[in-house]
Amino acid sequence: MAFSERIARLKSSLIREILAAAQRPEVMSFAGGLPAEPMLPKVEWADMPASMGQYGMSEGEPELREAIAAEARALGIACEASQVLIVSGSQQTLDLASKLFIDPGTEVLLEAPTYLAALQAFQLFGADCITVPQEADGPELAALQQRLENHKPAFAYLIPTFQNPSGVRYSEAKREAVAALLDEFGVTLIEDEPYRELVFDEGRAAPIVSRLQKASWVYTGTVSKTLLPGLRVGFLIATPDLFPHFLRLKQSADLHTNRIGQWQALQWLGSQQYRDHLAELRDFYRLRRDAMQVALEEHFGELADWNIPQGGLFFWLTLKQPLDTRTLLQPALAQNVAFMPGEPFFTHPEQNPGYLRLNFSHVAPERLSEGLQRLASVIRQAQASAAA
Amino acid sequence: MAFSERIARLKSSLIREILAAAQRPEVMSFAGGLPAEPMLPKVEWADMPASMGQYGMSEGEPELREAIAAEARALGIACEASQVLIVSGSQQTLDLASKLFIDPGTEVLLEAPTYLAALQAFQLFGADCITVPQEADGPELAALQQRLENHKPAFAYLIPTFQNPSGVRYSEAKREAVAALLDEFGVTLIEDEPYRELVFDEGRAAPIVSRLQKASWVYTGTVSKTLLPGLRVGFLIATPDLFPHFLRLKQSADLHTNRIGQWQALQWLGSQQYRDHLAELRDFYRLRRDAMQVALEEHFGELADWNIPQGGLFFWLTLKQPLDTRTLLQPALAQNVAFMPGEPFFTHPEQNPGYLRLNFSHVAPERLSEGLQRLASVIRQAQASAAA
Repeated sequence: MAFSERIARLKSSLIREILAAAQRPEVMSFAGGLPAEPMLPKVEWADMPASMGQYGMSEGEPELREAIAAEARALGIACEASQVLIVSGSQQTLDLASKLFIDPGTEVLLEAPTYLAALQAFQLFGADCITVPQEADGPELAALQQRLENHKPAFAYLIPTFQNPSGVRYSEAKREAVAALLDEFGVTLIEDEPYRELVFDEGRAAPIVSRLQKASWVYTGTVSKTLLPGLRVGFLIATPDLFPHFLRLKQSADLHTNRIGQWQALQWLGSQQYRDHLAELRDFYRLRRDAMQVALEEHFGELADWNIPQGGLFFWLTLKQPLDTRTLLQPALAQNVAFMPGEPFFTHPEQNPGYLRLNFSHVAPERLSEGLQRLASVIRQAQASAAA
Repeated sequence: MAFSERIARLKSSLIREILAAAQRPEVMSFAGGLPAEPMLPKVEWADMPASMGQYGMSEGEPELREAIAAEARALGIACEASQVLIVSGSQQTLDLASKLFIDPGTEVLLEAPTYLAALQAFQLFGADCITVPQEADGPELAALQQRLENHKPAFAYLIPTFQNPSGVRYSEAKREAVAALLDEFGVTLIEDEPYRELVFDEGRAAPIVSRLQKASWVYTGTVSKTLLPGLRVGFLIATPDLFPHFLRLKQSADLHTNRIGQWQALQWLGSQQYRDHLAELRDFYRLRRDAMQVALEEHFGELADWNIPQGGLFFWLTLKQPLDTRTLLQPALAQNVAFMPGEPFFTHPEQNPGYLRLNFSHVAPERLSEGLQRLASVIRQAQASAAA
């Protein structure tokens, strides 16, 4: 069987395998980015018009595009509804952007660590991934400047607000500096913001695309983290030089995004009901974040360092004694605990051992301590074996 | 702006532009493949479990995969649910297959004419499209054999049952012969069957994949033509050597297909309600097919030749005096009539003038005669101008 050469770059997805293992009801999963089941809002379908069953436009539902443009403008992004493309979850933005920009050997600029599934999508198309180390307040600026001087990336892919996996929210100063550098070097920005609304500790964080003067950009988001991921409704907003290409690629990929999910998303966006739901969601997840912090201090205080995330869904732990955390997966699953090893979030996993990503939204607080105790014990045993 | 080299192959989609023009309520559209609005079934959502809002498996909903495998087995296809992948409309199968098989210059084997959006998807990835002329009962076998002897296509993409655009249903003899040739040359078959259930004149037509002994295969279908296209729910069934690659490509493309649409599809598949709906649909479309035939005889008898389609959604007309039918689009739209020019269904449009694809499912019978009269008059005027 002769496959395309890209198939040689198609990695087995660790996430999918871990999530599959984590489906067993007895497993406590810190692995995924799943919303908590009790916080999935009850939705109504009775008023949906029958016309939503018919084929729709590749661009997406006109009213939904208007609503998303209005929300983006409220964040300071200058845009019109004509720049909004509804996608089948924001993962599809990564697929479409890969098609638009990446040939084998095309350079792209990423944070290290970065979102695993973005890395996989870009690498599938043959990207040469250039990375900038992530610090507690955003990318290391000197490294960013040096990369831009020495490389010609087709785009920079950044997750500036509660980054997956690091939880970092870029500071105002770094947002300004990053925008200025991308403008100076004329590099397109893809800004991925699935977690913006999951904010627990307020702070200014206007999108970087709103600060660009010259560079082209794509801003992408989703209702998966705030409404229902099962709808598979996300969006991208693109500068007019990019939009027509995205639209044609979208049509070729799946004609258009399902209209029933689009209709449901439209019932919520911009409504008081949605604002109330988001407020509840933030309170709920803030409590879980705080409970996780308490449990981590109890069980991981001697094992790891971390910052308290101000939003999003993850703690990012740095082990004081690094080891390949992928080797911890099987023993942890044997204890009915699932987590995400940190290595796959780097372009060079083997050079970045000793990180763990722990989701705090899914496991109920009363089981947290037990789960983290088991995980800490698995780590201690592995470190003891390594030392022996 | 540096785009990938594939973007140079990204064509403006004629279909999208025609469909956009055809949205105007005063336009009678013979252009699309849209189901008739009155035949969109009323669906219920009240019983959908809240869990459908959560993230799901990349493979699709287990019960839906079981139901689709059962239907495929009833058609004679040896398969298990583990070979079924739920996709975001069967257009996504074309995208995933392109990723799996096509590098720039990879040969693929197609019918001439073939489905426009398949051609575009394969060409986007750089396929070298080898074609076999379509006859009234299927592909020209001597040409197929010759192509297989002289080329090494990564796959053959065929639409054997009520082909889009030609309406052809392969004969039993040609189905057998095609299967034997693909087995002999070891060429993977992608069999696309969106129209199988829209049959007006019964006849045996077991899928070609059910006749293969050795070759790998993909069988793809959708609920878009029989239930609701707005759900964006399709499926592919693949031999076990191909399935794991499709699954990973699916995950990278959009994580998974929307679960609400999957749940709705599951309520129908295999049910008495669905069988009743399909019977109604066939009666409804058979009447429209027959009405179209009458109106065509009246207005196109001197202008074109055609076969009566035994299923599907289209008449395929061959003008007695060929001309580039793309030049008819603007004058037809000026008369508030939309149709699909035949040229884009060929890899070499300029060498295949004089075909029109006319959909018969969408325009109400009482407006048919008026619409076809206007279209015939546009053609006569163009032919008169060409002769002058």
